[in-house]
Amino acid sequence: MTTAPQDTLAQAILRGERRALARAITLVESGRDDHRAQANALLDAVRGAGRQALRIGLSGTPGVGKSTFIEAFGKMLTGQGKRVAVLAVDPSSARSGGSILGDKTRMERLSRDPLAFIRPSPSQTQLGGVARRTREAVTLCEAAGFDVVLIETVGVGQSETMVAEMSDLFVLLMAPAGGDELQGVKRGIMEIADLIVVNKADGDLKPVATRTCADYAGALRLLRKRPQDPQGFPKAVMVSATEETGLADAWAEMETLTAWRRENGHWDSRRATQARHWFEEEVRQGLLARLTGSAEARARMVDLGKAVATGDKMPGPAAEEMLRWLGR
Amino acid sequence: MTTAPQDTLAQAILRGERRALARAITLVESGRDDHRAQANALLDAVRGAGRQALRIGLSGTPGVGKSTFIEAFGKMLTGQGKRVAVLAVDPSSARSGGSILGDKTRMERLSRDPLAFIRPSPSQTQLGGVARRTREAVTLCEAAGFDVVLIETVGVGQSETMVAEMSDLFVLLMAPAGGDELQGVKRGIMEIADLIVVNKADGDLKPVATRTCADYAGALRLLRKRPQDPQGFPKAVMVSATEETGLADAWAEMETLTAWRRENGHWDSRRATQARHWFEEEVRQGLLARLTGSAEARARMVDLGKAVATGDKMPGPAAEEMLRWLGR
Repeated sequence: MTTAPQDTLAQAILRGERRALARAITLVESGRDDHRAQANALLDAVRGAGRQALRIGLSGTPGVGKSTFIEAFGKMLTGQGKRVAVLAVDPSSARSGGSILGDKTRMERLSRDPLAFIRPSPSQTQLGGVARRTREAVTLCEAAGFDVVLIETVGVGQSETMVAEMSDLFVLLMAPAGGDELQGVKRGIMEIADLIVVNKADGDLKPVATRTCADYAGALRLLRKRPQDPQGFPKAVMVSATEETGLADAWAEMETLTAWRRENGHWDSRRATQARHWFEEEVRQGLLARLTGSAEARARMVDLGKAVATGDKMPGPAAEEMLRWLGR
Repeated sequence: MTTAPQDTLAQAILRGERRALARAITLVESGRDDHRAQANALLDAVRGAGRQALRIGLSGTPGVGKSTFIEAFGKMLTGQGKRVAVLAVDPSSARSGGSILGDKTRMERLSRDPLAFIRPSPSQTQLGGVARRTREAVTLCEAAGFDVVLIETVGVGQSETMVAEMSDLFVLLMAPAGGDELQGVKRGIMEIADLIVVNKADGDLKPVATRTCADYAGALRLLRKRPQDPQGFPKAVMVSATEETGLADAWAEMETLTAWRRENGHWDSRRATQARHWFEEEVRQGLLARLTGSAEARARMVDLGKAVATGDKMPGPAAEEMLRWLGR
């Protein structure tokens, strides 16, 4: 039996080598077909190890102090000897071709920590592509022996739902705010949050943060009780990332929730549901990609679209023509 | 040349016979393959007449007095000699198998009007199916010589966007409300509205209605100016459906907007864009239907889904397996 290069890479990942992990993530981020095949072989090779990290999805709009929180929270965890990976998902970077300030610059102390691994957002045009690559990067981080994988996103569009669908816990980071702004939080986001963390509970903002935290706690109590939650969850807690207060309490809440879900089978069933969701989503995306995958398909879509726009064809029959061409 | 039954039906529709129109709509609502073929032939036969009605999308949550408004507004139009068709789109009826009180019971006076035609919501399980059948029913009403086609929907889920995508004008019917409730109107809905009509501007509610109307007018002014709008649009106006006041003014606003859009090419370009949208949407839905269209495809999806849920396969490779089976 010969050893494929992916096996060597797989072994280096399983030994926890960060450079190998970085190379592997670059491989899964590639759009090239041969890289795709290598990536699949690699994922298959590391999967057998069966390692699981706690996947924490984290969302917060710009200005809530997300980088500062991740750095302080991550340092607290590495201080306890835990290995922490941070993956960023930023759909807006698809336009700018990556964040202007790299994520490593944002979290300088954490990026120098030997127990931490920080990976900036890949610049992809499609959210579907970002989803797949991020999920695979999470799998690679787990194989590399990380204890906690933080999947960070900005609170825009569908990226929050996407990140929640690949996380064991979903944390919403919020800034202290007046009562009016609280209403601006979309109900759907409240419903996927397991923990709301109000940041900047320091200095002049502390009283506002206390009130905001109580407001969110009240709003969360109004939501329907979820079977996957123990008594008292979802919760709202308060931290100061700059003063590094409340972080241990926030972590304790996450551990309580995680332990309860593990004991009650919700951890496994959530992961199973998520895996099935992503399988179905990839099949759907793959089917739809046939419309844009070849120049011939694109040209036909354009031609039929024109005929429909001018009224020469009705949308329904034109669609049937396209579907026949794509093969029943 | 022989005359197919659809030609006879087509001729009866073009003569404006309401019974023929009702039969034709039943045909396009049918899920049977042979009916589908007949429906396509029928649509093709009537298309040549090139008749266009003003398609008005109308949305309003239960309780705003939608039926009362449509009846009063419709009667005003038929009083001017206009022929008015009302098509209802109610995705919630998919669950209940049709509205409990039929639409004709709701609008008794209008349903007895020889210039009016009222069609209740078909009970369909899929919004995609409802969209296609409603669009085709609109085409048939246009062929039958109706001047105005009102496409009515309740303000839930995606049905509003769907109706807006098949309308020349989109009208949002609102009830008088306090300032807090105003914030409950989703921004996306405000952005697709051409006219907000505040109903119940009568009796004790009149002062609240006046304030509500001013609030909406203010909120609309904050939205970005749209190229398809003349100065002053989108607008908010006030009516009382029970006292039948303000209806002529609301209609005058719709006529002003319509005339401007016709003169400036926006009417045609909007219809062209919508036709293209529905063509692309039907192709997408048709592709995705392959996942559920055969028992074999469904069984494969279930089997692969199980393998993914138990961790035997990764979502990505399992999806590739399914896509290969569906044929590249």
